[in-house]
Amino acid sequence: MNERDVIARLRRIATHEAARGLADDAALLGDLVLTHDSIAEGIHFLPTDPPDSVGWKLVAVNLSDLAAKGAAPVAALLSMTLAGDGKWDEAFLDGVEAACESYALALVGGDTIAVPKRAPRVLGMTAIGRAGERTPSRAGGRPGDVLWLAGFLGDSAAGLALLQADRKAVGPLVDVYRRPVPLLGAGRALAAFANAMMDVSDGLLLDCQRLCEASGCGAEIDLDALPLARPFIAERGQNRAARLFAATGGDDYALLAAIPDGIDPSVSLSLPDGIRVTRIGRLTEVEGLALADADGSIAAPEHLGHEHRGL
Amino acid sequence: MNERDVIARLRRIATHEAARGLADDAALLGDLVLTHDSIAEGIHFLPTDPPDSVGWKLVAVNLSDLAAKGAAPVAALLSMTLAGDGKWDEAFLDGVEAACESYALALVGGDTIAVPKRAPRVLGMTAIGRAGERTPSRAGGRPGDVLWLAGFLGDSAAGLALLQADRKAVGPLVDVYRRPVPLLGAGRALAAFANAMMDVSDGLLLDCQRLCEASGCGAEIDLDALPLARPFIAERGQNRAARLFAATGGDDYALLAAIPDGIDPSVSLSLPDGIRVTRIGRLTEVEGLALADADGSIAAPEHLGHEHRGL
Repeated sequence: MNERDVIARLRRIATHEAARGLADDAALLGDLVLTHDSIAEGIHFLPTDPPDSVGWKLVAVNLSDLAAKGAAPVAALLSMTLAGDGKWDEAFLDGVEAACESYALALVGGDTIAVPKRAPRVLGMTAIGRAGERTPSRAGGRPGDVLWLAGFLGDSAAGLALLQADRKAVGPLVDVYRRPVPLLGAGRALAAFANAMMDVSDGLLLDCQRLCEASGCGAEIDLDALPLARPFIAERGQNRAARLFAATGGDDYALLAAIPDGIDPSVSLSLPDGIRVTRIGRLTEVEGLALADADGSIAAPEHLGHEHRGL
Repeated sequence: MNERDVIARLRRIATHEAARGLADDAALLGDLVLTHDSIAEGIHFLPTDPPDSVGWKLVAVNLSDLAAKGAAPVAALLSMTLAGDGKWDEAFLDGVEAACESYALALVGGDTIAVPKRAPRVLGMTAIGRAGERTPSRAGGRPGDVLWLAGFLGDSAAGLALLQADRKAVGPLVDVYRRPVPLLGAGRALAAFANAMMDVSDGLLLDCQRLCEASGCGAEIDLDALPLARPFIAERGQNRAARLFAATGGDDYALLAAIPDGIDPSVSLSLPDGIRVTRIGRLTEVEGLALADADGSIAAPEHLGHEHRGL
């Protein structure tokens, strides 16, 4: 049984309608949206990452799932392993607290457990949000819907690459990798119109494929349209290779929404200041991903994103 | 910062009323009761334990927290690390599924994450219950309340001791250690009258001390009154040493309730078949635990239970 089998098995267990077939970012129980994301040392964060940024990130990745469902943060339960390094734990909690305060997320419970020394840390959070009027799943997209993206792509992956080359690297790309910002306001605004929505955590192409599979359709993506931030362009340029890197890098915490043609969220929605919403393609009858830029169509890369990050 | 400091810090962060000061087994958000418990390999279960029993136990320990608040199981989110042993993972999920089905707990979401091979497994669950008419905390006990215990003490600790001596040991005590039964029906019944209630997971004396600290009082416990099951007595006898072992062993998942004098839950409540409710002592004005048996008062043992198991 590999990870894919485990997830298939979990889906067979999770038959309650609130589970949404485990094909969504979150469960919907009454008017509450529930999500749980865990992060492990050596997989989702580097042992050398500042612990306060790890705490921030744990909260942010969970809030990003709430954002993708248009929900407002309410409460969270924290699960943390204690490996005997009190200084690390304290700084980690600084980051958790800062993110909870920033986004009005009340920490209401959880669990601390001792683990053997040198065991990789496993940090988990269950975040609970209040649903808005609509809670788009991944499954509601229809051929003809326009794909909109809130936020930018590639910054975090470029920041991680800088850190992998030099663990003392600093700068705006490293900041995005370490302190992602959940797009809660944009999520609430887009949820009112989106037929389908999800957050882009494992790479745009992989996550778009998941949205297509859940919705039973395909997608065309215009690589030239992908929103790249200035620091990304300064580091990596904006040619085809740079754009494919951005489209597969992961850890973006952008939002991908399928919105009926004719609604332009960049003008018709009241979006938070500084949030850019970009038209990047559309859903199609034909299954699969079709990529193109000004030079013509592009074969989908072998790795669309980070498969190994679980549900 | 040691584990106690971490918990103190978490309490300072968790100021929302739903958190109940993190001094309770669970949070109360509207009419939902929320709890998260994680278990780690080598700490809460043995690497040699059958994986289906580990899955069962993870569900049961979370349901025991719901039972202690008189809540009915609704839904759960599962967090599991995948260390590359698919056979283990499959059997673990068998146990999760069996327990979820047994107690009508819907698995609605969660997360699977890869961890490095040989990293100790960390398995977590957030369980969500529907509150009953009353949701007793640990903090409502008053001097004069009678302490009642639902379930038996010591079986699980005796089973663990058998396994530590011979990892192939079998029998009813090993069964209790591996497959605890959450006392959901008893919890619902007792919650209607209890001023304070909690589950006994880390040892009766330690957990009773926690209830006393939260309630601002002390307790007298009659060691002779502690309910011991026949398999426990057959294995360990029922002298003072055996009773102190049972009172400090942990992993019981019994329920401890402080109920106003004059209400006898063993006659006035409609309890599930086979559930025994026993009067074991009372709350006092004088702080601290006072233990006694027919031979007189007993000094409290140095170790009241398992401190290291976290919140």
